[in-house]
Amino acid sequence: MTAEYRFNHKHIISIDDFSEADINFILQTAENLKEISTRSIKKVPTLRGKTIINLFFEPSTRTRLSFEIAAKRMSADTFNISASTSSATKGETLIDTAKNLQAMQPDAIIIRHSSSGVPNLLKRHVQASIINAGDGTHQHPSQALLDMMTVKEKKGRLAGLKIAIIGDITHSRVAHSNIMGFTKMGADVHVCGPNTMLPVGIEAMGATRQQSVAKAVENADVVMALRIQKERQKDPLIPSLREYATVFGINRAMAALAKPDALIMHPGPINRGVEMSPDVADGTQSVILEQVTNGVAIRMALLYLVLGGD
Amino acid sequence: MTAEYRFNHKHIISIDDFSEADINFILQTAENLKEISTRSIKKVPTLRGKTIINLFFEPSTRTRLSFEIAAKRMSADTFNISASTSSATKGETLIDTAKNLQAMQPDAIIIRHSSSGVPNLLKRHVQASIINAGDGTHQHPSQALLDMMTVKEKKGRLAGLKIAIIGDITHSRVAHSNIMGFTKMGADVHVCGPNTMLPVGIEAMGATRQQSVAKAVENADVVMALRIQKERQKDPLIPSLREYATVFGINRAMAALAKPDALIMHPGPINRGVEMSPDVADGTQSVILEQVTNGVAIRMALLYLVLGGD
Amino acid sequence: MTAEYRFNHKHIISIDDFSEADINFILQTAENLKEISTRSIKKVPTLRGKTIINLFFEPSTRTRLSFEIAAKRMSADTFNISASTSSATKGETLIDTAKNLQAMQPDAIIIRHSSSGVPNLLKRHVQASIINAGDGTHQHPSQALLDMMTVKEKKGRLAGLKIAIIGDITHSRVAHSNIMGFTKMGADVHVCGPNTMLPVGIEAMGATRQQSVAKAVENADVVMALRIQKERQKDPLIPSLREYATVFGINRAMAALAKPDALIMHPGPINRGVEMSPDVADGTQSVILEQVTNGVAIRMALLYLVLGGD
Repeated sequence: MTAEYRFNHKHIISIDDFSEADINFILQTAENLKEISTRSIKKVPTLRGKTIINLFFEPSTRTRLSFEIAAKRMSADTFNISASTSSATKGETLIDTAKNLQAMQPDAIIIRHSSSGVPNLLKRHVQASIINAGDGTHQHPSQALLDMMTVKEKKGRLAGLKIAIIGDITHSRVAHSNIMGFTKMGADVHVCGPNTMLPVGIEAMGATRQQSVAKAVENADVVMALRIQKERQKDPLIPSLREYATVFGINRAMAALAKPDALIMHPGPINRGVEMSPDVADGTQSVILEQVTNGVAIRMALLYLVLGGD
Repeated sequence: MTAEYRFNHKHIISIDDFSEADINFILQTAENLKEISTRSIKKVPTLRGKTIINLFFEPSTRTRLSFEIAAKRMSADTFNISASTSSATKGETLIDTAKNLQAMQPDAIIIRHSSSGVPNLLKRHVQASIINAGDGTHQHPSQALLDMMTVKEKKGRLAGLKIAIIGDITHSRVAHSNIMGFTKMGADVHVCGPNTMLPVGIEAMGATRQQSVAKAVENADVVMALRIQKERQKDPLIPSLREYATVFGINRAMAALAKPDALIMHPGPINRGVEMSPDVADGTQSVILEQVTNGVAIRMALLYLVLGGD
Repeated sequence: MTAEYRFNHKHIISIDDFSEADINFILQTAENLKEISTRSIKKVPTLRGKTIINLFFEPSTRTRLSFEIAAKRMSADTFNISASTSSATKGETLIDTAKNLQAMQPDAIIIRHSSSGVPNLLKRHVQASIINAGDGTHQHPSQALLDMMTVKEKKGRLAGLKIAIIGDITHSRVAHSNIMGFTKMGADVHVCGPNTMLPVGIEAMGATRQQSVAKAVENADVVMALRIQKERQKDPLIPSLREYATVFGINRAMAALAKPDALIMHPGPINRGVEMSPDVADGTQSVILEQVTNGVAIRMALLYLVLGGD
C-alpha cells in the first residue's frame, strides 16, 4: 500500500469496480479485523449507532447471517427484511421500497435479489451505501473477496496461481465475481462445466475454457466446485445429477490431478455427492469452512470501509 | 405548552384518547428527537434496558421497521413476532398470548392486528404499554401523528387548513385516525370516495362529505390519497382499478385544483397509477417520503413518552 | 452447595446429564438473576460480545422469545434462523449447517428440532455450546428446570412432593425431562394418560403409572397437565378432543382431589377446555404464568453458566 492510497468506494456492487490496490486493501483490512471474532468479547464499537438493513429477496441463511454477525460485532444496529413479508407483496415497486427505506435514514442497505442489476439500480435512488449480497447471475462480490482472502492466506499470494472453477459458469454469480477477481490479481483462471453452462465468450473475462475437468484441474493450486443451483435454471440443462456427478463432480481421483497442496473450495451449501464427493469436501486440503470464517471478516471490512467507521 | 401540562398516557390506542395539548406535545417531542436520525452516530441511551416486542399479525415492512428503528435508536432491545410463527397457529387464544408475553416482563408491546379493537382488549390484560400499530379498520394513531407532524412542519400550523382525504374511507384506519386528529387540531377535513367506501354518518366524525373529488380537493392545503386495500374488502366494492383511477385517482389535473403550494400525501405503499399518478407522487409538492422520515421520529416520541425514558 | 462444587457443563442437552447439585445450582443461579427482569433498566453487561444463534427447525414463539430475551438482558448478540429460510431448503445436511454456523464463531447455538437426538449429534461437530430447546419427543431441559424452579419457589423444596403429570406422556419431551428432573430431586412423580400415550416401561424412569387421573392427582402437591400436541402424533391416538377433555382434562372437580394448596401447571400454549378447563387455568392455584416468568430466569442462568460470563 503506498502512502497515497485511499479506499474510495461508497457502494459494493461488482468486483469490476475495484482496482488491484482496492482488493489488496480490503483483504488486508479483513485480516486485521478477523482477530476480533476470536476474542472472548467479540465486539468493537466501530460502527455504533449505524443503521444497517438486510433486504433479502432470496432466501439465505449463511450470507445474511454472515453480514449480520459482521455488523453486530462492530456494534451496528441491524434490521432484517425478507421478501415474503415485504411491501413487495403489496404491489410496491422496488424503487419505491428503496426510497422508503432510505427515508428512514439507514447507513447501508445489504441487498440480495434474483434479478441481475438490482443493486446497481438502487444505488441511484438512495443515499445509503448499497452492498450487493448477490444479484441474479451477475455478481456476488463479498464471496469472491472471501475466496481471494482464503487463497492468499494459504498461498501467500494470488498472482501466478492456477485456479480451476468447475460447474455452472453461466448461472453462477460466484463464478463471475471470482473470475473477475482472481484474473485481476494476476491468477490464471481455468473453467469447465457442461456445454450448456459455459457462456460463449468467457475468454473475454480472462478465463481459459477447458474441454475436460481433468484439463482444468491438472496442476491447479485451487480447485473450486460450484453449487448446482437448480432453482436458477429455467430448463433442465443437465440430464441427471448422477451424470453430472460422474463427469463434473470433484472426487478424490479428480482432485489428485491438482497440485498435492491444492486448496479445495466450495461457496456452499454443498450438494454432497453431486458437485463434490464427501471425502474431498471433508479432506485435509479442503478450506471450505475457512471460507465461511473469512466471510465474516470480509463483511466486517466492507462495512467498515464504506461506512467510514473510525 | 403551559407549565402544568403533563403527558399522562400509558398506552397509544386511538387518536380519540388524546387532547389537543397531547398531540402538540407529541409533535414537539418528535421534532426534538428527529435530529438524532441525522447524526453520524444515530443512537442515544434513553431506553437502554427496555424490552419492546413487535407483535404483528398482519404483514408489514414499513411500520414494523419504523418502530424497530425508532426503538433501537434509543437503545431499547426489540423482539419481533410475526403471526405465521406465533402460538396463534397452535390454537392459543389472543389473551393467553398477551399474558404469556407479559410474563416475560416487556416494557411495551407494539401490536398490529386485522381485527379492530384488539389493542384495546389487550391493554386490560397486560402491565406493559400497548402501542397500536394498526387494528383492523379502526385506528392507526402513529400514522395520523406523523401526518400531522409533516403538515405542521410545512404549513406551520394545523388549525384552519383544508385537508382532502380521498379513497376508501370506510375501510381505512389511516383515514379514521387522520379525520379524528386533524379535526381535533382545528383543520377542516373533506372526504370523498366511492359511495360503497364512504361510511354513513362520517359527518359525526367532523368530516365533510363531498360528492366529487374535485369538490374535496378544490383549494385544499393538503391532498391525501388513501391506498386501495383490496385485502381488507370482502366484496369487490369497485368495478375495476382502471375506473377507480379515472374517477378517484389523484392525477396532475386534479392536484391542480388544490392550492398551488398544497401538500401531496400518501400513507404508502403506493399503487402507482391507481390512487395516485406517478408524476404527482414524485412531484415537487409531494411530501410522501418526508412522512416516512417523520414516522421514525413520531415512533421515537411515542416510545419515549410511554416508557418514561429520561 | 459445598465449597468445592463447580458447574462443569458446556452443553445443555438432557436433564439426565445433571446431578442433583447441578440442578440446585442452576435453580439458585436463576433465582439470583430473576431480579434483573424487574428493574427499570433490565440489562447487565455479563454476556457482552457473545454471539448466540437461535436455530429453530420447529415454529416457536415462547421458547425462542424467552431465550432471546434472556440473552439480550445479559447483553449478548442474538441471531435467529428459522427452518423455512435456512439452507435446509437448499439440501444441505444438518451437520454441514452446524459446521458452517460454527465457522462464524458463535458462543452458543440454541436448537429446536423435530428429531430426537439432534442436539446430541451436533455437539460433536461444533465448538460452541449447544443448548437443547426441545428435540422431538426426547428432552426439553430448560422447561423442566423452570418447572422445578417454580415448584421450589412455592413449596420451598422438591424432595418428598407428589407430582402428577397428566396427558400424552409418550410424545412429550416436557414430560420426559420433568419425570427425570423431579425424580432426581427426590419428588414422587405419578403419570396418567390414555393407554396409547403411556409408554411401556415408564416405571424405569422412576415414575408411577396410574390407571386413573383421580389416582394420580389425589393428594398431589403439583398437578401438571400436558398439551395435546396433535402435530406430533402420526396416528389419531384419541377418539376425540371432547372425550379427552372428559376423561383426562383437569377441571375443577379433578383439581379438588389434590392438596388444597396444590400448584396447577401447564407448559403452554394451553388448549383451553381440552387438557385443562379455563377456571382451573386461571384459578388462584395456577402458576402457569409464573412458569413463563421463571423461564426467562432459567435461560439467563443456563446461558450464563455455559458461556462463563463473569
